[in-house]
Amino acid sequence: MPKIVILRWGHRPQRDARLTTHVALAARALGASGIVLSDTEDSKIKETIEKITQSWGGEFSFEMGAHWKNVVKKWKANGGIVVHLTAYGENIEASNVLRKIRSSGKDVLIIVGSQKVPKEFYSEQVSDFNVAIGNQPHSECASLAIFLDRYFEGKSLEKNFENAKMKIIPQGRGKRIVESR
Amino acid sequence: MPKIVILRWGHRPQRDARLTTHVALAARALGASGIVLSDTEDSKIKETIEKITQSWGGEFSFEMGAHWKNVVKKWKANGGIVVHLTAYGENIEASNVLRKIRSSGKDVLIIVGSQKVPKEFYSEQVSDFNVAIGNQPHSECASLAIFLDRYFEGKSLEKNFENAKMKIIPQGRGKRIVESR
Repeated sequence: MPKIVILRWGHRPQRDARLTTHVALAARALGASGIVLSDTEDSKIKETIEKITQSWGGEFSFEMGAHWKNVVKKWKANGGIVVHLTAYGENIEASNVLRKIRSSGKDVLIIVGSQKVPKEFYSEQVSDFNVAIGNQPHSECASLAIFLDRYFEGKSLEKNFENAKMKIIPQGRGKRIVESR
Repeated sequence: MPKIVILRWGHRPQRDARLTTHVALAARALGASGIVLSDTEDSKIKETIEKITQSWGGEFSFEMGAHWKNVVKKWKANGGIVVHLTAYGENIEASNVLRKIRSSGKDVLIIVGSQKVPKEFYSEQVSDFNVAIGNQPHSECASLAIFLDRYFEGKSLEKNFENAKMKIIPQGRGKRIVESR
Protein backbone atom coordinates (compact mmCIF):
# COMPACT_ATOMS: atom_id res chain seq x y z
CA MET A 1 0.00 0.00 0.00
CA PRO A 2 1.39 3.43 -0.89
CA LYS A 3 2.02 5.75 2.01
CA ILE A 4 0.50 9.13 2.61
CA VAL A 5 2.18 12.09 4.27
CA ILE A 6 0.58 15.46 5.03
CA LEU A 7 2.25 18.76 4.25
CA ARG A 8 0.70 21.37 6.50
CA TRP A 9 1.36 24.76 5.01
CA GLY A 10 0.78 28.18 6.55
CA HIS A 11 0.65 27.18 10.19
CA ARG A 12 0.71 30.15 12.54
CA PRO A 13 1.89 28.92 15.95
CA GLN A 14 -0.56 30.86 18.11
CA ARG A 15 -3.59 31.08 15.92
CA ASP A 16 -3.54 27.63 14.35
CA ALA A 17 -2.25 25.54 17.24
CA ARG A 18 -5.42 23.60 17.90
CA LEU A 19 -6.47 23.20 14.29
CA THR A 20 -3.08 21.91 13.24
CA THR A 21 -3.16 19.51 16.18
CA HIS A 22 -6.53 18.27 14.94
CA VAL A 23 -5.18 17.92 11.40
CA ALA A 24 -2.31 15.80 12.75
CA LEU A 25 -4.64 13.70 14.96
CA ALA A 26 -6.97 13.07 12.06
CA ALA A 27 -4.05 12.18 9.79
CA ARG A 28 -2.72 9.64 12.30
CA ALA A 29 -6.13 8.13 13.15
CA LEU A 30 -6.95 7.75 9.47
CA GLY A 31 -3.84 5.97 8.35
CA ALA A 32 -1.37 8.62 7.17
CA SER A 33 2.30 7.91 7.88
CA GLY A 34 3.28 11.35 9.05
CA ILE A 35 3.03 15.10 8.79
CA VAL A 36 5.41 17.88 7.85
CA LEU A 37 4.81 21.32 9.30
CA SER A 38 6.48 23.43 6.63
CA ASP A 39 8.22 26.79 6.90
CA THR A 40 7.79 27.05 10.66
CA GLU A 41 8.30 25.16 13.88
CA ASP A 42 5.96 24.30 16.72
CA SER A 43 7.56 22.03 19.29
CA LYS A 44 4.46 21.95 21.45
CA ILE A 45 2.34 20.31 18.77
CA LYS A 46 5.17 17.94 17.89
CA GLU A 47 5.35 16.88 21.54
CA THR A 48 1.58 16.43 21.82
CA ILE A 49 1.45 14.21 18.74
CA GLU A 50 4.51 12.19 19.68
CA LYS A 51 3.10 11.51 23.13
CA ILE A 52 -0.10 10.26 21.58
CA THR A 53 1.79 7.95 19.24
CA GLN A 54 3.83 6.61 22.18
CA SER A 55 0.68 5.81 24.14
CA TRP A 56 -1.62 4.73 21.36
CA GLY A 57 0.85 3.00 19.10
CA GLY A 58 1.64 2.81 15.43
CA GLU A 59 4.18 4.88 13.56
CA PHE A 60 3.63 8.49 12.73
CA SER A 61 6.39 10.91 11.85
CA PHE A 62 6.34 14.59 12.71
CA GLU A 63 8.77 16.90 10.92
CA MET A 64 8.91 20.65 10.90
CA GLY A 65 10.81 23.64 9.64
CA ALA A 66 11.62 22.64 6.06
CA HIS A 67 10.66 24.97 3.24
CA TRP A 68 7.60 23.61 1.42
CA LYS A 69 9.35 23.75 -1.95
CA ASN A 70 12.07 21.46 -0.72
CA VAL A 71 9.57 19.01 0.75
CA VAL A 72 7.71 18.84 -2.57
CA LYS A 73 10.92 18.56 -4.59
CA LYS A 74 12.24 15.71 -2.45
CA TRP A 75 8.89 13.91 -2.52
CA LYS A 76 8.76 14.03 -6.30
CA ALA A 77 12.40 13.01 -6.63
CA ASN A 78 11.47 9.90 -4.63
CA GLY A 79 8.71 9.06 -7.09
CA GLY A 80 5.72 10.31 -5.12
CA ILE A 81 2.82 12.41 -6.33
CA VAL A 82 1.38 15.57 -4.80
CA VAL A 83 -2.30 16.22 -4.09
CA HIS A 84 -3.42 19.71 -3.13
CA LEU A 85 -6.70 19.79 -1.22
CA THR A 86 -8.69 22.87 -2.22
CA ALA A 87 -12.34 23.76 -2.61
CA TYR A 88 -11.52 24.89 -6.17
CA GLY A 89 -10.25 21.51 -7.34
CA GLU A 90 -11.84 18.52 -9.02
CA ASN A 91 -14.76 17.25 -6.98
CA ILE A 92 -13.84 13.94 -5.36
CA GLU A 93 -17.43 12.71 -5.62
CA ALA A 94 -18.34 14.01 -9.07
CA SER A 95 -15.11 13.18 -10.91
CA ASN A 96 -12.77 10.24 -11.23
CA VAL A 97 -9.86 12.07 -9.59
CA LEU A 98 -9.58 9.69 -6.64
CA ARG A 99 -9.47 6.70 -8.96
CA LYS A 100 -6.63 8.32 -10.89
CA ILE A 101 -4.70 8.98 -7.69
CA ARG A 102 -5.19 5.48 -6.34
CA SER A 103 -4.41 3.76 -9.60
CA SER A 104 -1.08 5.57 -9.86
CA GLY A 105 0.01 3.31 -7.01
CA LYS A 106 2.38 6.04 -5.85
CA ASP A 107 3.03 7.55 -2.45
CA VAL A 108 0.95 10.68 -1.91
CA LEU A 109 1.94 13.98 -0.33
CA ILE A 110 -1.22 15.88 0.59
CA ILE A 111 -0.89 19.63 0.84
CA VAL A 112 -3.29 21.11 3.37
CA GLY A 113 -3.23 24.87 3.65
CA SER A 114 -4.24 26.92 6.63
CA GLN A 115 -4.32 30.43 5.22
CA LYS A 116 -4.73 31.44 1.60
CA VAL A 117 -2.11 29.42 -0.27
CA PRO A 118 0.46 30.56 -2.89
CA LYS A 119 -0.88 30.43 -6.44
CA GLU A 120 1.91 28.00 -7.33
CA PHE A 121 0.18 25.24 -5.35
CA TYR A 122 -2.34 24.93 -8.19
CA SER A 123 0.33 24.59 -10.89
CA GLU A 124 1.85 21.49 -12.43
CA GLN A 125 5.17 22.35 -10.89
CA VAL A 126 3.67 21.61 -7.49
CA SER A 127 0.45 19.61 -7.58
CA ASP A 128 -0.34 16.58 -9.68
CA PHE A 129 -3.97 16.88 -8.63
CA ASN A 130 -6.11 19.61 -7.11
CA VAL A 131 -8.87 17.86 -5.23
CA ALA A 132 -12.01 19.34 -3.70
CA ILE A 133 -13.93 17.56 -0.97
CA GLY A 134 -17.00 19.29 -2.28
CA ASN A 135 -16.81 22.80 -3.68
CA GLN A 136 -18.13 24.64 -0.65
CA PRO A 137 -16.20 26.65 1.96
CA HIS A 138 -14.81 23.95 4.15
CA SER A 139 -12.59 22.88 7.00
CA GLU A 140 -9.21 21.52 5.93
CA CYS A 141 -9.34 19.12 8.83
CA ALA A 142 -12.67 17.72 7.65
CA SER A 143 -11.50 17.60 4.04
CA LEU A 144 -8.36 15.71 4.90
CA ALA A 145 -10.34 13.22 6.98
CA ILE A 146 -12.69 12.43 4.13
CA PHE A 147 -9.89 12.17 1.61
CA LEU A 148 -8.08 9.64 3.80
CA ASP A 149 -11.24 7.68 4.61
CA ARG A 150 -12.02 7.36 0.93
CA TYR A 151 -8.45 6.72 -0.16
CA PHE A 152 -8.07 3.84 2.30
CA GLU A 153 -11.65 2.73 1.68
CA GLY A 154 -12.48 2.97 5.35
CA LYS A 155 -9.97 0.33 6.38
CA SER A 156 -7.86 2.67 8.55
CA LEU A 157 -10.62 2.79 11.11
CA GLU A 158 -10.05 -0.87 11.90
CA LYS A 159 -6.28 -0.69 11.71
CA ASN A 160 -4.24 -2.22 14.51
CA PHE A 161 -1.81 0.32 15.95
CA GLU A 162 1.25 -1.67 16.97
CA ASN A 163 3.00 -1.37 20.31
CA ALA A 164 0.10 0.52 21.83
CA LYS A 165 0.16 1.02 25.59
CA MET A 166 -3.49 2.06 25.55
CA LYS A 167 -6.30 0.59 23.58
CA ILE A 168 -10.01 1.33 23.51
CA ILE A 169 -12.37 -1.60 23.49
CA PRO A 170 -15.30 -0.23 21.50
CA GLN A 171 -18.73 -0.58 23.07
CA GLY A 172 -22.24 0.74 22.83
CA ARG A 173 -22.27 2.33 26.30
CA GLY A 174 -19.57 3.76 28.56
CA LYS A 175 -15.80 3.75 28.23
CA ARG A 176 -13.38 0.89 28.26
CA ILE A 177 -9.62 1.24 27.94
CA VAL A 178 -7.07 -1.53 28.26
CA GLU A 179 -3.58 -0.53 29.33
CA SER A 180 -0.48 -2.63 28.88
CA ARG A 181 3.15 -1.99 29.69
CA MET B 1 -34.29 11.98 3.56
CA PRO B 2 -34.03 12.45 7.33
CA LYS B 3 -32.33 15.60 8.50
CA ILE B 4 -29.23 15.87 10.63
CA VAL B 5 -28.49 18.58 13.16
CA ILE B 6 -25.30 18.95 15.18
CA LEU B 7 -25.28 19.63 18.92
CA ARG B 8 -21.93 21.19 19.74
CA TRP B 9 -21.32 20.78 23.44
CA GLY B 10 -18.62 22.33 25.61
CA HIS B 11 -17.69 25.23 23.36
CA ARG B 12 -15.43 27.76 25.10
CA PRO B 13 -15.73 31.06 23.23
CA GLN B 14 -12.04 32.01 23.20
CA ARG B 15 -10.33 28.66 23.06
CA ASP B 16 -12.65 26.81 20.71
CA ALA B 17 -13.63 29.59 18.32
CA ARG B 18 -11.85 28.30 15.24
CA LEU B 19 -12.52 24.62 15.86
CA THR B 20 -16.22 25.20 16.38
CA THR B 21 -16.26 27.30 13.22
CA HIS B 22 -14.69 24.39 11.38
CA VAL B 23 -17.20 21.98 12.87
CA ALA B 24 -20.01 24.22 11.60
CA LEU B 25 -18.42 24.63 8.16
CA ALA B 26 -17.94 20.89 7.82
CA ALA B 27 -21.51 20.27 8.95
CA ARG B 28 -22.89 22.66 6.35
CA ALA B 29 -20.65 21.49 3.50
CA LEU B 30 -21.52 17.87 4.21
CA GLY B 31 -25.27 18.17 4.24
CA ALA B 32 -26.33 18.79 7.84
CA SER B 33 -29.33 21.08 8.31
CA GLY B 34 -27.98 23.09 11.20
CA ILE B 35 -26.02 23.34 14.41
CA VAL B 36 -26.89 24.13 18.00
CA LEU B 37 -24.20 25.60 20.20
CA SER B 38 -25.45 24.47 23.59
CA ASP B 39 -25.07 26.09 27.00
CA THR B 40 -23.21 29.11 25.71
CA GLU B 41 -23.37 31.85 23.09
CA ASP B 42 -20.90 33.02 20.48
CA SER B 43 -22.35 35.64 18.16
CA LYS B 44 -19.16 35.95 16.18
CA ILE B 45 -19.27 32.36 14.98
CA LYS B 46 -22.99 32.63 14.29
CA GLU B 47 -22.34 35.67 12.13
CA THR B 48 -19.47 33.98 10.26
CA ILE B 49 -21.57 30.95 9.43
CA GLU B 50 -24.65 32.95 8.50
CA LYS B 51 -22.61 35.10 6.13
CA ILE B 52 -21.27 31.99 4.45
CA THR B 53 -24.75 30.58 4.02
CA GLN B 54 -25.95 33.89 2.55
CA SER B 55 -23.14 33.89 -0.01
CA TRP B 56 -22.87 30.21 -0.77
CA GLY B 57 -26.50 29.22 -0.52
CA GLY B 58 -28.55 26.44 0.95
CA GLU B 59 -30.23 26.39 4.33
CA PHE B 60 -28.31 25.98 7.52
CA SER B 61 -29.63 26.95 10.93
CA PHE B 62 -27.46 28.24 13.74
CA GLU B 63 -28.90 28.27 17.25
CA MET B 64 -27.16 28.89 20.53
CA GLY B 65 -27.65 29.20 24.24
CA ALA B 66 -30.09 26.39 24.98
CA HIS B 67 -29.23 23.86 27.67
CA TRP B 68 -28.14 20.60 26.05
CA LYS B 69 -30.69 18.60 28.03
CA ASN B 70 -33.51 20.65 26.62
CA VAL B 71 -32.21 20.29 23.08
CA VAL B 72 -32.04 16.51 23.46
CA LYS B 73 -35.46 16.31 25.13
CA LYS B 74 -37.11 18.35 22.41
CA TRP B 75 -35.38 16.36 19.66
CA LYS B 76 -36.60 13.08 21.09
CA ALA B 77 -40.10 14.43 21.67
CA ASN B 78 -40.18 15.20 17.93
CA GLY B 79 -39.31 11.61 17.10
CA GLY B 80 -35.61 12.00 16.37
CA ILE B 81 -32.71 9.87 17.55
CA VAL B 82 -29.46 10.97 19.16
CA VAL B 83 -25.98 9.86 18.12
CA HIS B 84 -23.03 10.67 20.33
CA LEU B 85 -19.69 10.69 18.51
CA THR B 86 -16.98 9.33 20.79
CA ALA B 87 -13.79 7.33 20.36
CA TYR B 88 -15.19 4.86 22.93
CA GLY B 89 -18.28 3.97 20.94
CA GLU B 90 -19.11 1.29 18.40
CA ASN B 91 -16.69 1.41 15.51
CA ILE B 92 -18.46 2.73 12.41
CA GLU B 93 -16.32 0.55 10.13
CA ALA B 94 -16.22 -2.65 12.18
CA SER B 95 -19.85 -2.75 13.32
CA ASN B 96 -23.28 -2.33 11.76
CA VAL B 97 -24.06 0.78 13.80
CA LEU B 98 -24.39 3.09 10.79
CA ARG B 99 -26.79 0.68 9.12
CA LYS B 100 -28.94 0.69 12.27
CA ILE B 101 -28.96 4.49 12.36
CA ARG B 102 -29.81 4.85 8.69
CA SER B 103 -32.45 2.18 8.68
CA SER B 104 -34.29 3.90 11.55
CA GLY B 105 -35.22 6.51 8.95
CA LYS B 106 -35.35 9.08 11.75
CA ASP B 107 -33.85 12.55 12.03
CA VAL B 108 -30.49 12.46 13.77
CA LEU B 109 -29.06 14.82 16.38
CA ILE B 110 -25.30 14.33 16.50
CA ILE B 111 -23.60 15.30 19.75
CA VAL B 112 -20.06 16.51 19.22
CA GLY B 113 -18.14 17.34 22.38
CA SER B 114 -15.26 19.73 22.67
CA GLN B 115 -13.99 19.02 26.16
CA LYS B 116 -14.49 15.87 28.20
CA VAL B 117 -18.22 15.24 28.11
CA PRO B 118 -20.65 14.46 30.96
CA LYS B 119 -20.96 10.74 31.66
CA GLU B 120 -24.68 10.98 30.93
CA PHE B 121 -23.96 11.40 27.21
CA TYR B 122 -23.16 7.67 27.06
CA SER B 123 -26.42 6.63 28.73
CA GLU B 124 -29.69 5.57 27.17
CA GLN B 125 -31.35 8.67 28.57
CA VAL B 126 -29.28 10.74 26.14
CA SER B 127 -27.75 8.75 23.29
CA ASP B 128 -29.39 6.10 21.17
CA PHE B 129 -26.00 5.26 19.71
CA ASN B 130 -22.41 5.92 20.73
CA VAL B 131 -20.41 5.89 17.53
CA ALA B 132 -16.63 5.88 17.09
CA ILE B 133 -15.00 7.01 13.86
CA GLY B 134 -12.20 4.64 14.72
CA ASN B 135 -11.12 4.07 18.31
CA GLN B 136 -8.07 6.31 18.29
CA PRO B 137 -7.65 9.80 19.74
CA HIS B 138 -9.28 11.96 17.16
CA SER B 139 -10.52 15.31 16.01
CA GLU B 140 -14.24 15.85 16.48
CA CYS B 141 -14.27 17.91 13.30
CA ALA B 142 -12.75 15.03 11.32
CA SER B 143 -15.06 12.49 12.96
CA LEU B 144 -18.16 14.50 12.18
CA ALA B 145 -17.06 14.92 8.57
CA ILE B 146 -16.62 11.19 8.07
CA PHE B 147 -19.89 10.37 9.79
CA LEU B 148 -21.77 12.75 7.48
CA ASP B 149 -19.95 11.59 4.36
CA ARG B 150 -20.84 8.00 5.14
CA TYR B 151 -24.37 8.74 6.30
CA PHE B 152 -25.19 10.58 3.08
CA GLU B 153 -23.12 8.10 1.03
CA GLY B 154 -21.01 10.88 -0.41
CA LYS B 155 -23.93 12.60 -2.10
CA SER B 156 -23.65 15.85 -0.12
CA LEU B 157 -20.47 16.70 -1.97
CA GLU B 158 -22.46 17.09 -5.19
CA LYS B 159 -25.40 18.82 -3.57
CA ASN B 160 -26.75 21.97 -5.19
CA PHE B 161 -26.88 24.80 -2.63
CA GLU B 162 -29.89 26.86 -3.59
CA ASN B 163 -29.91 30.64 -3.92
CA ALA B 164 -26.14 30.82 -3.91
CA LYS B 165 -24.55 34.14 -4.81
CA MET B 166 -21.19 32.47 -5.26
CA LYS B 167 -20.42 29.16 -6.83
CA ILE B 168 -17.15 27.39 -7.51
CA ILE B 169 -16.72 25.75 -10.89
CA PRO B 170 -14.46 22.82 -10.06
CA GLN B 171 -11.37 22.41 -12.20
CA GLY B 172 -8.02 20.68 -12.25
CA ARG B 173 -5.95 23.89 -12.16
CA GLY B 174 -6.56 27.36 -10.77
CA LYS B 175 -9.66 28.94 -9.27
CA ARG B 176 -12.97 29.73 -10.85
CA ILE B 177 -15.87 31.38 -9.07
CA VAL B 178 -19.14 32.47 -10.62
CA GLU B 179 -21.01 35.27 -8.89
CA SER B 180 -24.65 36.07 -9.40
CA ARG B 181 -26.91 38.65 -7.84
